[in-house]
Amino acid sequence: MAVQLESFPVSIQFQIEATSGLGRAGRLLTPHSEVETPVFMPVGTLGSVKGVSQDVLEELGVQILLGNTYHLYLRPGVETVRRMGGLHGFMSWERSILTDSGGFQVFSLNDLRKVSEEGVTFRSHLDGSSHFFSPESAMEAQIGLGADIIMAFDECTEFPADRERVRSSMELTLRWAERSKKYFEEHKGEVPWGRSRLSAVSSQENAKSLDSARDDNQAGGRTNASAATQALFGIVQGGMDRELRRESALRTVEIGFAGYAIGGLSVGEPREVTREIVESTLAHLPTDKPHYLMGVGTPDEIALYAQMGVDMMDCVLPTRAARHGLLFTSEGKISIKQARFAQDGGPLDPGCGCRVCQRYSRAYLRHLYAANELLAQVLNTIHNVSFYLDTMRAVRHSILLGDRAHFLSEPSRPKS
Amino acid sequence: MAVQLESFPVSIQFQIEATSGLGRAGRLLTPHSEVETPVFMPVGTLGSVKGVSQDVLEELGVQILLGNTYHLYLRPGVETVRRMGGLHGFMSWERSILTDSGGFQVFSLNDLRKVSEEGVTFRSHLDGSSHFFSPESAMEAQIGLGADIIMAFDECTEFPADRERVRSSMELTLRWAERSKKYFEEHKGEVPWGRSRLSAVSSQENAKSLDSARDDNQAGGRTNASAATQALFGIVQGGMDRELRRESALRTVEIGFAGYAIGGLSVGEPREVTREIVESTLAHLPTDKPHYLMGVGTPDEIALYAQMGVDMMDCVLPTRAARHGLLFTSEGKISIKQARFAQDGGPLDPGCGCRVCQRYSRAYLRHLYAANELLAQVLNTIHNVSFYLDTMRAVRHSILLGDRAHFLSEPSRPKS
Repeated sequence: MAVQLESFPVSIQFQIEATSGLGRAGRLLTPHSEVETPVFMPVGTLGSVKGVSQDVLEELGVQILLGNTYHLYLRPGVETVRRMGGLHGFMSWERSILTDSGGFQVFSLNDLRKVSEEGVTFRSHLDGSSHFFSPESAMEAQIGLGADIIMAFDECTEFPADRERVRSSMELTLRWAERSKKYFEEHKGEVPWGRSRLSAVSSQENAKSLDSARDDNQAGGRTNASAATQALFGIVQGGMDRELRRESALRTVEIGFAGYAIGGLSVGEPREVTREIVESTLAHLPTDKPHYLMGVGTPDEIALYAQMGVDMMDCVLPTRAARHGLLFTSEGKISIKQARFAQDGGPLDPGCGCRVCQRYSRAYLRHLYAANELLAQVLNTIHNVSFYLDTMRAVRHSILLGDRAHFLSEPSRPKS
Repeated sequence: MAVQLESFPVSIQFQIEATSGLGRAGRLLTPHSEVETPVFMPVGTLGSVKGVSQDVLEELGVQILLGNTYHLYLRPGVETVRRMGGLHGFMSWERSILTDSGGFQVFSLNDLRKVSEEGVTFRSHLDGSSHFFSPESAMEAQIGLGADIIMAFDECTEFPADRERVRSSMELTLRWAERSKKYFEEHKGEVPWGRSRLSAVSSQENAKSLDSARDDNQAGGRTNASAATQALFGIVQGGMDRELRRESALRTVEIGFAGYAIGGLSVGEPREVTREIVESTLAHLPTDKPHYLMGVGTPDEIALYAQMGVDMMDCVLPTRAARHGLLFTSEGKISIKQARFAQDGGPLDPGCGCRVCQRYSRAYLRHLYAANELLAQVLNTIHNVSFYLDTMRAVRHSILLGDRAHFLSEPSRPKS
């Protein structure tokens, strides 16, 4: 198959390969890698998925990681990461990365923050020092961190909140979205890998034809980053109000972003409300752009949301639960610390092909957890991440199959 | 090269391939794997080298691990490990394992122990519960844990101690050595993998000729464990008194063990004293048996002891130091938390080929440590273990080369 020149994304490209109902199976090309969607993005808060080395993440098939701007801004600091070539260079991760804007993290600080039109003043959870994030400074930080996909700075509305509060918060997020986009457009050339790659390849590139550059792309499986920039996603807010969500979606789309996220969910509302808001909001997002649902959920939920048309999701649940010995399996969630596993020689999940389930028994995993061994957290995290990735792969597969089954069966289907 | 039938060890076999000065390069065949000596054995206290999964240990070239009987006896308990096929099955480690006798661990409990002729009463460091180890129960525990090499139960003499105290302690260890050997000889057939392997292969084995069994051995790189048992090592004590060490060595050898350990060192004495006692004790050990120096030391020290004729060593230093951010490199020991590494894009050790040095920068490792990320402990441990293994490999290589160089140069050497 010939590689088309269009596969050199300036920032990202998104192609939908198949649909089944509202679910979409697609491919997201970023300056660093291809991402098959729907995709689950493991959370690497501080430039590390806690306890798991990058080669294991690669082996698990992780295609895109999430980093937290707020945390990385505090430690090690944006300038350090920028000098190391951005997060990709700093953490030695050649595949795709997305950073959040810091908005949700700052929202989580509660008493430690103060919101104004200009931005948010907050105190570090580490040492109480005072800091300020504005749409502009959040963009500056995310450009310095150099993820492939970055997020507009938003206010995550608290729950519950009355309609006027939700509206004014949504309006603030919209004004911040415009400011985020403006700053990004003016500064996107400052991304650290854009520069460094450009300088690294410029002498050779100058002598190259488009054909040879295309060959490089094909051979390396990577896109040509020398001319690439990051992609900026907008975030839809609007609380639990379908009408405000609709307005937020339409006005965010009007500003224009490379992709659209649904923020402000999983903040304490019932899961049924989450589902309703996701469903109603998705209806107002352009079908040709990636849909990113932020911060959800259980394996069942991410499968459901993917079938509803969400393309990207992240959640701390698999990694955080793993560190507490809560493991997701094809037979349900189990707490590995339970005494009933003490002499259980079987694999954690007989239906799982991950390196943990292939090698270790429940008895061993139970012992590691009970004895507070470091390896418990490492192995539990590997399994849970693997389980989430497998869940998304299964949904993707069913969407691809579902579409084909529909196509194949159509001619012979009896007309009713 | 034809594999000789002698390479099926009933317990272990030890062959010296080359010597250089007092240093020896050898091969230790255990029922589970071949071990090239001199060898460093990483400490896997509770059935895990803290933070490092078994596949990484394999990749690093770890050939033999050490487990701590005291800790495994408390958690998960010997019976649990035994039912899982011993430590090999329990932790999914197919290569060799050595367990200590629990003597040194109990010695470390200080106020929580009471020694009598019969054994040691001690309180668990976990819950204060009372337990009793005798030579017989320590053997029973180690047979249940099923390591390839197990240690006689000894009393580790405190430092400093007067001569009479050292002598009486040494005499107690000698009496316990005899009891350990007696119990072991009577019960060695109860090793869990001996039984389970025997039953698993018995039907096929019955129909097999010795030739085909030999082929199996060659193909799998493993020894025939169906008829194998563990090997019991004796421990030389005698404090810092060369004369008592000599007596302890001779009388321990008289009892007769498959290998001999030097215990009771690294208990607070000056390093020069350690070296002197090691040197003088080694002179009284049989050259055709493995020499195991327990619980030492720095990379320089383990290299020195190997050159003095020690074949096996273990130490918590590389793993424990790693968790405190202290890393051994070809340029000396460094504390990765230092601010000078914050923007150091170079590898931890330019001379190291481990997966950590090949992939991550000092800046990243410094950040992980400073941010208290789990991955810091994982990666630091991988590097330090790798560095220790490389140190032993270099000594082994120099012994092999030294011997050959000596042999090659001999004919042309001018006679003086």
